[in-house]
Amino acid sequence: MAYFDAASAAPLHPVARQALLAALDEGWADPARLYREGRRARLLLDAAREAAAECVGCRADELVFTPSGTRAVHSGVAGALAGRRRVGRHLIVSAVEHSSVLHAAEAHEAAEGGSVTRVPVDRTGAVAPEAYAASLREDTALACLQSANHEVGTEQPVSRVAEACRAAGVPLLVDAAQSLGWGRVEGDWSLLTGSAHKWGGPSGVGLLVVRKGVRFAPQGPGDERESGRAPGFENLPAIVAAAASLRAVRAEAAAEAARLRELTERIRSRVPDLVPDVEVVGDPSRRLPGIVTFSCLYVDGETLLHELDRAGFSVSSGSSCTSSTLTPSHVLRAMGVLSEGNVRMSLPPGTPAQEVERFLEVLPGTVAAVREKLGAPAAPETVRAAGPDLVVDALGRRCPVPVIELAKVIGDVPVGGTVRVLSDDEAARLDIPAWCEMRGQEYVGEEPADRGTAYLVRRTS
Amino acid sequence: MAYFDAASAAPLHPVARQALLAALDEGWADPARLYREGRRARLLLDAAREAAAECVGCRADELVFTPSGTRAVHSGVAGALAGRRRVGRHLIVSAVEHSSVLHAAEAHEAAEGGSVTRVPVDRTGAVAPEAYAASLREDTALACLQSANHEVGTEQPVSRVAEACRAAGVPLLVDAAQSLGWGRVEGDWSLLTGSAHKWGGPSGVGLLVVRKGVRFAPQGPGDERESGRAPGFENLPAIVAAAASLRAVRAEAAAEAARLRELTERIRSRVPDLVPDVEVVGDPSRRLPGIVTFSCLYVDGETLLHELDRAGFSVSSGSSCTSSTLTPSHVLRAMGVLSEGNVRMSLPPGTPAQEVERFLEVLPGTVAAVREKLGAPAAPETVRAAGPDLVVDALGRRCPVPVIELAKVIGDVPVGGTVRVLSDDEAARLDIPAWCEMRGQEYVGEEPADRGTAYLVRRTS
Repeated sequence: MAYFDAASAAPLHPVARQALLAALDEGWADPARLYREGRRARLLLDAAREAAAECVGCRADELVFTPSGTRAVHSGVAGALAGRRRVGRHLIVSAVEHSSVLHAAEAHEAAEGGSVTRVPVDRTGAVAPEAYAASLREDTALACLQSANHEVGTEQPVSRVAEACRAAGVPLLVDAAQSLGWGRVEGDWSLLTGSAHKWGGPSGVGLLVVRKGVRFAPQGPGDERESGRAPGFENLPAIVAAAASLRAVRAEAAAEAARLRELTERIRSRVPDLVPDVEVVGDPSRRLPGIVTFSCLYVDGETLLHELDRAGFSVSSGSSCTSSTLTPSHVLRAMGVLSEGNVRMSLPPGTPAQEVERFLEVLPGTVAAVREKLGAPAAPETVRAAGPDLVVDALGRRCPVPVIELAKVIGDVPVGGTVRVLSDDEAARLDIPAWCEMRGQEYVGEEPADRGTAYLVRRTS
Repeated sequence: MAYFDAASAAPLHPVARQALLAALDEGWADPARLYREGRRARLLLDAAREAAAECVGCRADELVFTPSGTRAVHSGVAGALAGRRRVGRHLIVSAVEHSSVLHAAEAHEAAEGGSVTRVPVDRTGAVAPEAYAASLREDTALACLQSANHEVGTEQPVSRVAEACRAAGVPLLVDAAQSLGWGRVEGDWSLLTGSAHKWGGPSGVGLLVVRKGVRFAPQGPGDERESGRAPGFENLPAIVAAAASLRAVRAEAAAEAARLRELTERIRSRVPDLVPDVEVVGDPSRRLPGIVTFSCLYVDGETLLHELDRAGFSVSSGSSCTSSTLTPSHVLRAMGVLSEGNVRMSLPPGTPAQEVERFLEVLPGTVAAVREKLGAPAAPETVRAAGPDLVVDALGRRCPVPVIELAKVIGDVPVGGTVRVLSDDEAARLDIPAWCEMRGQEYVGEEPADRGTAYLVRRTS
């Protein structure tokens, strides 16, 4: 079995397990109590806070532990927005933030006076610092930017965006969930969030850092725990394990990053050679060491995941068929890249090179089998004589069928002729233009149809 | 060492520890994922939910896991209030709810249109079902009542209050944090909350039950986890341990309840014999098996806790000097009982009888030593001739000094004469009337003074 989904949840680091076990015996009592079990718990909590703060690069009294990374984001965004309510109600996020940030933004937008700007990204998934800076307004209360993307691994220009925010007097909240195990977030940020189970710590622990001097007003009912910023009994054994494991993974980070980067580099370069019609997405160099993502034309993501699982590989996917809403991942959409047959591999530290090699051996046959089952065009589309224009009715068919049908008939129209694909599948909106880009055909545009949408493609070669 | 503060946090049950360890290996992956680690995690989560629901007495799809009991309460109250926003914005709580419920009520009161009725309790800490029912209004959106009190152990008349709520069409939320380990909550309640570390499960797990048919609108940013009612990655190992330990403590509950009840009964009856000037509080029979609470006149709670801790006993206290706000516990205040020298003993399951005996041996000397240090009146106050009225200036002195000063001079005024105690200590408001009740003196009332408050006591015997 090879587990390649560390970006969802990393297996527990041995140090985390050890610390958790020790703290179960020493740290179950209430750290707010005066008796010895309580004082011992308080000592453990203080030590964990010091250790975590040292790893983050902040003061201990700027850091609180929350029950999850999601909670840290929700509380952080809400508290920072409320703290600057007088300035205004404008929030900036990038279009490719983690869903927890986007959900917080949606909640803010639904509240009175709340407005949100979503800064677009380029095809690699990165925001342009200038575009981000241009979205800062007089009434901007808060800006959010992830340190690195959780689906494609692309690093964001946090330092430069932080500079622009600082110049405008706007606090920047950095969601560092994916990068915190690898190192501190550079730059002059104001708030930061993280999630222990992403770095090999236990689940049940997030962290929220609010720099001294940042206006912050915790929202919702509170209590006296964690500086009033995270109500509820502290999950102390997990907090102790989270801090200990963060220190441990940091000690191994430099060596492990180099090793994983080599492995993902190999995947990035080999997959397009081994599998036809693949798009590797994300920034080739400014990226996290362990994440690599690619999409396979004419492949249904859910079937591919199942086949890879049967072959012993655990990966995730941003394809629409793997989501409960049947829409492609918002990250892939924002990047404008192919979403069908999408595979995200995120290698946990310690991944052996031979597991990656075995994956590279298995992948081509697996993709080919899925394509065959779907009746995908096996060879490049051949030229066939036909009328100048064609209509493909793919209504009611799900990704990747509309693209497969398009690919099957593009050769039936002459160069200059068009194919009109009727589809009511959300993925088609992303994948038909992406297919055109990959195939060098012209994507003319979309228009409403009687049912669904018509996507117009002109054959150019 | 004897740990007598299970009502704050119970030591981890061996079954919880075992289940946690097993789940660390099997349940770290994301239960929303399709690969085998994810499916395994999903199976564990489903099984834990079934087991917990069986213990609660609800359907599995009515129960979600939250990161703490506090979170369960905050989310439950907010969601239920929002679900019935059209009916009105009136909330009912008892005056002796856990702080998480009271904090949620305060937040609601601060929001637009929110109003709260706090139903008073009698001297045992229980609400009267009739008084509770009388507070139900046309615009009542939600009513909250704990199953049993966390500070004095008194059980609330939940079934009868639930009946009244049902008749009025108002959902009742029961905070069952203290009682869930002992058994199901009887009666026709609508929502229920619990906290695993109160029954010997790990910290980091609460549960929120919303009966089918109850209108519920989760508040704040959400995600697709836990039916949209508890956002953030599930803390699966802790959830598994919580469910397993709830089942385990339930299996032992009947026998253990009988045993603990005998021990707390012994404390209730022996302490007033062994220590002069003690008030045992809470209902003598309708109470949780393991909790017993008493207050000692002329004693400073913090010093008493420290001395007991040095003697090897971990207990908690509702005295003002042990709280960060220097106010007596809201529960003792609502009951109108003495708060100085307050000791709450909450025995964890398995407490050996000899630890209780040792406590009974140690307590009298410890209390006597604290009283001596404070210069408390050692014998009943003797009659001394003096003028008809006296003023005691206890401004700037903290609990229990104002009461000690009062006791020292009451013998200096003739029967029918008065003592006027000047105090700026919050505890005096509760403890001077309580002292009068215990001593058979007449408490006349309070009035504002130049500084602080004047408490008037008439000598009647």
